[in-house]
Amino acid sequence: MSPQKYLRYLMLPSLFGTDRTKEILQVNPTVIPQREEAKEVKIFVHEYNASSIQEYGVESALECLHCQDNDYVSWINIDGLRKNDVETICNGYGIHPLVIEDILSINQRPKMDEVDNILFCLLNMLYFNEQKKSVETEQISIILGKNFVLSFQEDASRDVFPPIRTRLKINNAKIRQRGADYLCYSLLDMIVDNYFIVMEKVGEQIEIVEEEVVRSSNTRSLARINQLRKELIVLKRNFAPVRDLLNGIIRSESELLEDRHTKYYKDVYDHIVQAYDLSENYRDIIMSMQDLYLNNVNLRMNEVMKVMAIVTCLLAPATVIGGIFGMNFDIIPYIHNRWGFFIAVGLMLLIPLWMLYFFRKRGWF
Amino acid sequence: MSPQKYLRYLMLPSLFGTDRTKEILQVNPTVIPQREEAKEVKIFVHEYNASSIQEYGVESALECLHCQDNDYVSWINIDGLRKNDVETICNGYGIHPLVIEDILSINQRPKMDEVDNILFCLLNMLYFNEQKKSVETEQISIILGKNFVLSFQEDASRDVFPPIRTRLKINNAKIRQRGADYLCYSLLDMIVDNYFIVMEKVGEQIEIVEEEVVRSSNTRSLARINQLRKELIVLKRNFAPVRDLLNGIIRSESELLEDRHTKYYKDVYDHIVQAYDLSENYRDIIMSMQDLYLNNVNLRMNEVMKVMAIVTCLLAPATVIGGIFGMNFDIIPYIHNRWGFFIAVGLMLLIPLWMLYFFRKRGWF
Amino acid sequence: MSPQKYLRYLMLPSLFGTDRTKEILQVNPTVIPQREEAKEVKIFVHEYNASSIQEYGVESALECLHCQDNDYVSWINIDGLRKNDVETICNGYGIHPLVIEDILSINQRPKMDEVDNILFCLLNMLYFNEQKKSVETEQISIILGKNFVLSFQEDASRDVFPPIRTRLKINNAKIRQRGADYLCYSLLDMIVDNYFIVMEKVGEQIEIVEEEVVRSSNTRSLARINQLRKELIVLKRNFAPVRDLLNGIIRSESELLEDRHTKYYKDVYDHIVQAYDLSENYRDIIMSMQDLYLNNVNLRMNEVMKVMAIVTCLLAPATVIGGIFGMNFDIIPYIHNRWGFFIAVGLMLLIPLWMLYFFRKRGWF
Amino acid sequence: MSPQKYLRYLMLPSLFGTDRTKEILQVNPTVIPQREEAKEVKIFVHEYNASSIQEYGVESALECLHCQDNDYVSWINIDGLRKNDVETICNGYGIHPLVIEDILSINQRPKMDEVDNILFCLLNMLYFNEQKKSVETEQISIILGKNFVLSFQEDASRDVFPPIRTRLKINNAKIRQRGADYLCYSLLDMIVDNYFIVMEKVGEQIEIVEEEVVRSSNTRSLARINQLRKELIVLKRNFAPVRDLLNGIIRSESELLEDRHTKYYKDVYDHIVQAYDLSENYRDIIMSMQDLYLNNVNLRMNEVMKVMAIVTCLLAPATVIGGIFGMNFDIIPYIHNRWGFFIAVGLMLLIPLWMLYFFRKRGWF
Amino acid sequence: MSPQKYLRYLMLPSLFGTDRTKEILQVNPTVIPQREEAKEVKIFVHEYNASSIQEYGVESALECLHCQDNDYVSWINIDGLRKNDVETICNGYGIHPLVIEDILSINQRPKMDEVDNILFCLLNMLYFNEQKKSVETEQISIILGKNFVLSFQEDASRDVFPPIRTRLKINNAKIRQRGADYLCYSLLDMIVDNYFIVMEKVGEQIEIVEEEVVRSSNTRSLARINQLRKELIVLKRNFAPVRDLLNGIIRSESELLEDRHTKYYKDVYDHIVQAYDLSENYRDIIMSMQDLYLNNVNLRMNEVMKVMAIVTCLLAPATVIGGIFGMNFDIIPYIHNRWGFFIAVGLMLLIPLWMLYFFRKRGWF
Repeated sequence: MSPQKYLRYLMLPSLFGTDRTKEILQVNPTVIPQREEAKEVKIFVHEYNASSIQEYGVESALECLHCQDNDYVSWINIDGLRKNDVETICNGYGIHPLVIEDILSINQRPKMDEVDNILFCLLNMLYFNEQKKSVETEQISIILGKNFVLSFQEDASRDVFPPIRTRLKINNAKIRQRGADYLCYSLLDMIVDNYFIVMEKVGEQIEIVEEEVVRSSNTRSLARINQLRKELIVLKRNFAPVRDLLNGIIRSESELLEDRHTKYYKDVYDHIVQAYDLSENYRDIIMSMQDLYLNNVNLRMNEVMKVMAIVTCLLAPATVIGGIFGMNFDIIPYIHNRWGFFIAVGLMLLIPLWMLYFFRKRGWF
Repeated sequence: MSPQKYLRYLMLPSLFGTDRTKEILQVNPTVIPQREEAKEVKIFVHEYNASSIQEYGVESALECLHCQDNDYVSWINIDGLRKNDVETICNGYGIHPLVIEDILSINQRPKMDEVDNILFCLLNMLYFNEQKKSVETEQISIILGKNFVLSFQEDASRDVFPPIRTRLKINNAKIRQRGADYLCYSLLDMIVDNYFIVMEKVGEQIEIVEEEVVRSSNTRSLARINQLRKELIVLKRNFAPVRDLLNGIIRSESELLEDRHTKYYKDVYDHIVQAYDLSENYRDIIMSMQDLYLNNVNLRMNEVMKVMAIVTCLLAPATVIGGIFGMNFDIIPYIHNRWGFFIAVGLMLLIPLWMLYFFRKRGWF
Repeated sequence: MSPQKYLRYLMLPSLFGTDRTKEILQVNPTVIPQREEAKEVKIFVHEYNASSIQEYGVESALECLHCQDNDYVSWINIDGLRKNDVETICNGYGIHPLVIEDILSINQRPKMDEVDNILFCLLNMLYFNEQKKSVETEQISIILGKNFVLSFQEDASRDVFPPIRTRLKINNAKIRQRGADYLCYSLLDMIVDNYFIVMEKVGEQIEIVEEEVVRSSNTRSLARINQLRKELIVLKRNFAPVRDLLNGIIRSESELLEDRHTKYYKDVYDHIVQAYDLSENYRDIIMSMQDLYLNNVNLRMNEVMKVMAIVTCLLAPATVIGGIFGMNFDIIPYIHNRWGFFIAVGLMLLIPLWMLYFFRKRGWF
Repeated sequence: MSPQKYLRYLMLPSLFGTDRTKEILQVNPTVIPQREEAKEVKIFVHEYNASSIQEYGVESALECLHCQDNDYVSWINIDGLRKNDVETICNGYGIHPLVIEDILSINQRPKMDEVDNILFCLLNMLYFNEQKKSVETEQISIILGKNFVLSFQEDASRDVFPPIRTRLKINNAKIRQRGADYLCYSLLDMIVDNYFIVMEKVGEQIEIVEEEVVRSSNTRSLARINQLRKELIVLKRNFAPVRDLLNGIIRSESELLEDRHTKYYKDVYDHIVQAYDLSENYRDIIMSMQDLYLNNVNLRMNEVMKVMAIVTCLLAPATVIGGIFGMNFDIIPYIHNRWGFFIAVGLMLLIPLWMLYFFRKRGWF
Repeated sequence: MSPQKYLRYLMLPSLFGTDRTKEILQVNPTVIPQREEAKEVKIFVHEYNASSIQEYGVESALECLHCQDNDYVSWINIDGLRKNDVETICNGYGIHPLVIEDILSINQRPKMDEVDNILFCLLNMLYFNEQKKSVETEQISIILGKNFVLSFQEDASRDVFPPIRTRLKINNAKIRQRGADYLCYSLLDMIVDNYFIVMEKVGEQIEIVEEEVVRSSNTRSLARINQLRKELIVLKRNFAPVRDLLNGIIRSESELLEDRHTKYYKDVYDHIVQAYDLSENYRDIIMSMQDLYLNNVNLRMNEVMKVMAIVTCLLAPATVIGGIFGMNFDIIPYIHNRWGFFIAVGLMLLIPLWMLYFFRKRGWF
C-alpha cells in the first residue's frame, strides 16, 4: 500500500467514522434539554372549511390564539422553536405542561400520547444529507385538538408539507371537506412517505458500496459498510416507535378521531410497517455485502501470497543446483564437460517447469 | 488466477449483483406511484351459478358494471392496469378511493382490508425467471364483494388462474355451487400454491450452488450464494405479510365469508405457514453452504501454501550444504576426497528425505 | 493431501450432501400431490370395550364401515395409502373432503383440525436410517371420531404401534376401560415417544462427529457437521408444529375429548416441548462443534506453517555465511586459516541454535 | 507444539468433551424409564403445628400413611427412589398414576401440575461437581396436598434441606405457624437459592478460563470454553421451565395455596428470573471470551509468522551479495581490492539494518 | 512486538478483564446476604404540604416514626443501610418482612411490588467510575405509602436527589402541591434521567475506542471492546427490569397512585424504553467496531506479510543468477568476458524490476 493510499485510508474515517458515532450515541432526551433558541421563527396559519380558506403568516405567537374559537379547522404551523412562543401558544390552547416539555426537549423517542383533550404525536422528519451521505433528523410535534392542528418543526428552512398546502387551496378537495383529524393524517402520511425517499437514498448508497465491494474491496469499502450500518440504526430507531405511534392512534378511542378516517391511518400504518420490513432487508443485504467484502479481501491476499510462494518455491531448486556445482570439491562430475554448464542451467529451467506443470494439474493456480 | 478467470469473476457480479440489489431495495409504495399504463388490457368476465355459466371478454370497462345487479356470481378479471379502467370499474362497484389507490400503486406490501362492504386483498404472484435465476413479482389485487370478485393483475401475458377457469366450466363442480367467497379462496389458494413452485425452483438453485460449492468453491459460488440470499429476501418479504393477510381473513367476521368456508381459508393459511417455515430452512441451508464455501476456499489455499512452504523448507538444507562446500577456505574436509562431492549431494538428498519422513509422521501433510 | 484423500473428500459430499438437501428442500404440499399408490395395503381393525376385544384384518375397505354403528370403540389402522381405499373409508365415516385431501397429500406440515364432528391430526413418524445416517419421515393421519379412531400410515413395513396392540389385549387395561380419545392419546404418545429414540440416534451421531472433530478435524468432519445441521432441520420442522398440534388439542373444547384425559394430552405436550428444547441444545452443541472444528483446522495449519517458517528461517543465516566465505575476493579473513572452515560451520550451527533458544524463550513454539 | 503438549491436548477432550456431550444429549424422559432401584432409601417424617413438632425416620413406606389423617402439617421426605415404596406412599395419599410415573421416570423437564387435589412440582436440584467441573442434576418431586408435603429425592447422600429442618425445630418460627404451602414454598426457595451457588461456581470457572485465555490462549482454553457452553446449556435447560413452574403456581387458583403466601412464591419467581437473566449474561461473556481467544491465537501466530518472514527477508539481500561476489567471472570489481571483502560484508549488514529501520518506521513490528 | 508492548498487553487485562467479570458474574441475591453494615448512616426527613415544609436530620431511626400520623407528606431518606435501623423504620411503618429482606439483600434484580398498603420499588442507581471506566451500581429501595415515601440508599457519599430537595424548598412548586406519589415519580424520574448520563459516558468510551480502532487497532482495542461489552451487560441488566417495574406501576390500580399522575409515570417509562433501545444501538455499534478491528488487524498483518513475501520473492532470481555464475564448470559462457559480471548484476536488477512492474500492474500492492 503506497503512502498516499494509506493516508487516504486514515483520513477517511475522520470524515465518516467517529463523528457520526457521536451523533448517534449522544442521545439524551432528559438531562440536558438546553435546546438552542431558533434564530428564525415562522408561524403560518391556515383556517379553512369546505367552502373557504384563509392563509396568513403571523408575527407573534399571540396572534394565533383566537383560532380555536371559530368554526374553521385551523392549522398552525410553527417553524423554529423558541421557548417563549411555544409556551404562549400551548398555554393558549390549554396544552398540558408535560407536552410542552416534550416539544421543547431534543432527541425524544417518537411517541403518541392522549393528554386531556388533545392527541399528541412526536416524531422525526428524516432528510438525507447528500454531502455527508448521512441521515439527518428533525423533530416534529403534531398536536391534534378539537378543530385545530398545531405542528412544531425545528428547522424553518426545510419542510415536507408544501403538497398539503397546495391541496388545501383547492376548493372541494377532500382535505377541505374533512375535519382536523384528516389534516393530522395528511401530515403523518406526508412524513412517512418521506421516509421512503430517504430509504431510497440510503438504498442508492448501498448499491454504490456494493458495486465498490464487487469491483475493488478496499478498506474504504468496510468504512462505508460500517457507515451504512450506522445510518440503518438511525432509520430503525425511528421506524419502530413510529409504528407504535400509529398503532396507538388506530387503537385509540379518542373522540377527536372520526371512525371513517381509521382506514386512512391504517394506510399510513401499513407504510411504516413496510418501511420497517425494508430496513430489515437492507440489513440483510449489508451483512451479505460485508461477507462478500471479507471474502474478496481474503481472496486477493491469497492470490498474492500464492504467487509469491510459488515463485519462491520454483526458484529454490535452481538455487540448490547452483550450490551443488559451486562446491569446491576436486572431483565434481561434468565439471570439465563442455556441456556441463548448459546441462546444469537446463535443469534449473526444466525442474521449475515440471513443478509448474504439476501445480497446474493439481489446480493450485 | 489467469486473466480470463479474473475477467469472468468481474463480469459475474455485473450480471447478478448490484442490479438485483437495486430491484430489491428500490421499494417505494407511496412517493412515486407513476405506474406505467399497461399497453394491453384484457377484461374477462365469468358469470355463473350452480346450473349455468357465461364467459365473455369485454372491450371496455363500462361493459362489466351490470354484473352486480344479477343473481349470478361474477368474476371480473382485469389483466393489465390502466388508471381509467380501474377507476371506472371500481367506482361502478362502489369501491373506496383508498383501495383504488392501492390497486394502482406499485410495490405495495401484501395486506388485507375490510372497507365498507368489500374485502380487499393485495398480494404478489411470484414467478421464477429461469434466465436471470431470480424471483419476479406481479401485484394482484382481489376484491371480494357481495356476489362478485374483481381481480386485477399487472401483466396480461402471465397468469396462474387457468385451472380455475377449467374448473368453472364443469357443471356441478364445487366451485360452481358455492358463492363468491369460495371463488376468492380458490384464487388465493392458486396463488399460494404457486409460491411452492417458485420455492422449488429456488430450491433447485440452492442444490446446484451447493454442488458447485462442494466441487469447486470458486468466487462464482459466493456471488451465487449472495444472490440466493437476495432471492430469499424476496420470498420472505411476501410470505410473512400473506400469512397475516390470511390470518386476517380467518379471524374476520365479515358477512361476505360463509362460516363453512373458514376451513378452506385455514388450509391456505397452513400452506403459507409451511412456505414460511420452509424459507427459514432455506436460509439455514444457505448459511451452512456459506460456511462450507469459506472452509473449502480456506482449505484449498492452505493446501497450496503448505506444499509451497514444505518444498521451500525441504530445499533449504541443500542450499546450506552447497554453501558450506562452496566456501573458499584453504582447508575444507573431504574437499580433495574422491567421494566428497557425492557425499555432499547425498546429504542434500538424505536430509530432505528424513525431514519428509518426519513431517509425514507428524501428520503435517 | 494425497490424491486418495482428495478423492475421498470429493466422494464424500456426493454421498451426503446435495441429495439430502434435495430431500429437505423439495417440500411442496400442494402442487404435485401425485402420491404413488401403495403397493400393499393392510387394514386391521380392533373393536373393544372394557370386557371384550375383537381383532381382525379386513381385505377390502368396505368391510370396516360397520364399526361406527356398534357400541365398541373401534380402531381401524390402514397401512399403505391408496386413493380408493382412503376415500371409501372416509366417506363411510363422513369425513370432510378437505381432510381426505390432506391424508392423501404428501409433505404436509403437521397440523390439527376440528372439522365437523371429528378431530383430525396429521403428523410425521420419524425413523432414523442407520445406513444413510439420516432422519426419515412417514406421514401419519389420525382421525378421532365418536367411538372410533382411524389411523392412516404410509408405509406398511414400519410401525411403532405394537406396544399399544399388546396393551389392548390385556383385559382391565386402562386403555380398554377408556374411550376412543384415550386411544388417540396413546397413539400420539407413542409417536412422540418415538421422537426421542430418533433424537437419541442423532445425538449419537453428534457424539461420534464430536469425537472425530476432537481427534482429527478433517474435511469429512465439516461435511458431517453440515449433514447434522440438515437432520436437525428435519427434527425441528416436525417438533414445532406438533407442539402446536397438541396445544390445540389441550385447548380444544371438542366433546370428543373427556376432561379427565386432558392431563394425558398435557403429558405428551410436555414431552414434545422437551424434545423441542433438546433440539435447541443439539443446535448449540453442533455450533460449538463447528467452532471447535474451525479452530482445530486453523491450529493444525498454523502449526505446520510455523514449523516450516522456522526451519526456513533457521537455515537462512547458514546460507548467508556460506555465501560470505564463498566470495572470490583475494583477501578474505581466516580463509587460509587452518580452522577457518570449522569456525564458519560452527557459526552456521551456533546462530540457529541461539535463534532457536531465543524463539523458545519467546514462547513461539 | 511439543509431543507432551500435544498429548495433553488429546487427553483433555477425552476428559471433558464427548462424555459430557453424551450426558447432555441422552435425555429421553419417556422411552427407557428403567430407573435403577435406589440402593438405600431413607424416609423421614416431620409432623408439626405451631406448638409442637415430631420428627422420626420410618423403616417402611407403609408407616407414613397415617399422616394425612391428623391435624398436623406433615412433611415426608423420601431419599432414594424404589418403585415399590413410591407407589405405596402415593397410592396411600391418593396420587394420580401419571404423577407416580413422572416421579419414577428420569430426565424429566421441570414442570408443575395440578392433578385432582394436589399440586405437583417436578424440578432438578443442581450440584456443581468440583472434580469434573460440571453441573450435576438430581430430580426432586414435591407434592403439596392438604396438610401434607411429600418430597422425593433421587440421592440419599446429598440434600439441600438441612436449613429447613433446623428452622422447623424452632418454636414460633414462621414456618411452624403456617400451613403446608409455606413449607412447599420453603423447599422451592431453598432449591432455587441453591441454583445461585451453582451459578457462582460456574462463574468462577468462567473467570478462571478467562484469565487463562488472557494469559495464554492455548487449545485447552477453547476446550474449556466449549465445556462451559455445555454447562450453560444444563443451567438454562433447568431455569426456563422452573420459571414457568413458578409462574404456574402464582397464577394457580388452587385452594391449597393461601393468598397471603403468593408474595413468597413471587419472591422465588423473581429469583429464578434473575438466574435466567444471569445465565444470558454468562453466555454473552463466554462468547466474548471466545472472540478474545480466537483473536489471541491469531495474534500470536501472526507475531511468529511476521518475525520469521522478517528474518528471512532481512537475510535475503546478504545471500544475493554473497552470490554476486561468489560468481566466477574473470573481471569482478573490487575483487582484488584490499577492502573488497569488508565492503561486501558491510553491505550485507547495512542493507538489512536499513530495511529494519524502514520496516520499523512503517510500524510493521 | 517489543517486550514492553508485550508487557503492556499482559498488564492491561489484569486491569480490566477478569476482575470486572467477577463483579458482573458474582450476583447472588439470596444465598449470602451478608450485607456489611454501613459505616455511616444519615437519615434526613422532609415534611411538607403546599404551604409549609420542614427539613431536619434525625439521629436515630426511632425519631422518624411519627411522620405517618400527621397530614404532611413525609419523605424519609436513609443513606447507608444498617439492619437495625431499617427494621426499626420499616416495622414502624408496617412494612412486610419480605420487603425488609429485599431492602437488606444485595444484588437484587430491579422489581416492583404491591404489598399490603404500600408500593415497593427496588432498582439501581448507576454511576460511571471515571477511573475504572466502568459502570457502578447502587441499590435504591423506594417505598410509597399513604402520605409518605421512604427511600433507602446504600452509599451515604453519593446521591442524585439534590435537585429534588431544591425543588421541595420552593413554595408553590408543583411537587409541593401534589401528594406522595408525585414525589415517588420525581425520585424515579431522577434515577432514570441519571441513566442517560451514565450511557453518555459509556458512549464517550465507545467513541474513544472506535477512534483507537480506526487509528491503530492494537490488542488494547479488543480488550477495551470486550470491556465495553461487559459494561453494556450491566446497563441492559438494569434497563429491562426497570422497564417492567414502570410498566407495573402504570398498570397498577393501587389507590396510592392518582390517575392524573399516570402520564408522569408514562413519561419515565418512555425514557427507560428509549434507554433500552439506545443500549441496543450501542451493541450494534460495538459489534461493528469489533468487525472493523478484526479487519484492520488482518489488513495490517496482510500488508506486512505481503511486503515480506514480495521482497523475498524479488531477491530469489538474483540468488539464482549468482548461483549460476558461481558454479565451477570449466566452460561458462561470458565468464571471461569483460562485461560478464556487469551483465549478470544487471540481470539481477532488471528481473526484479520487471517482476515489480508486473506485480504492480496486477494490482498486488
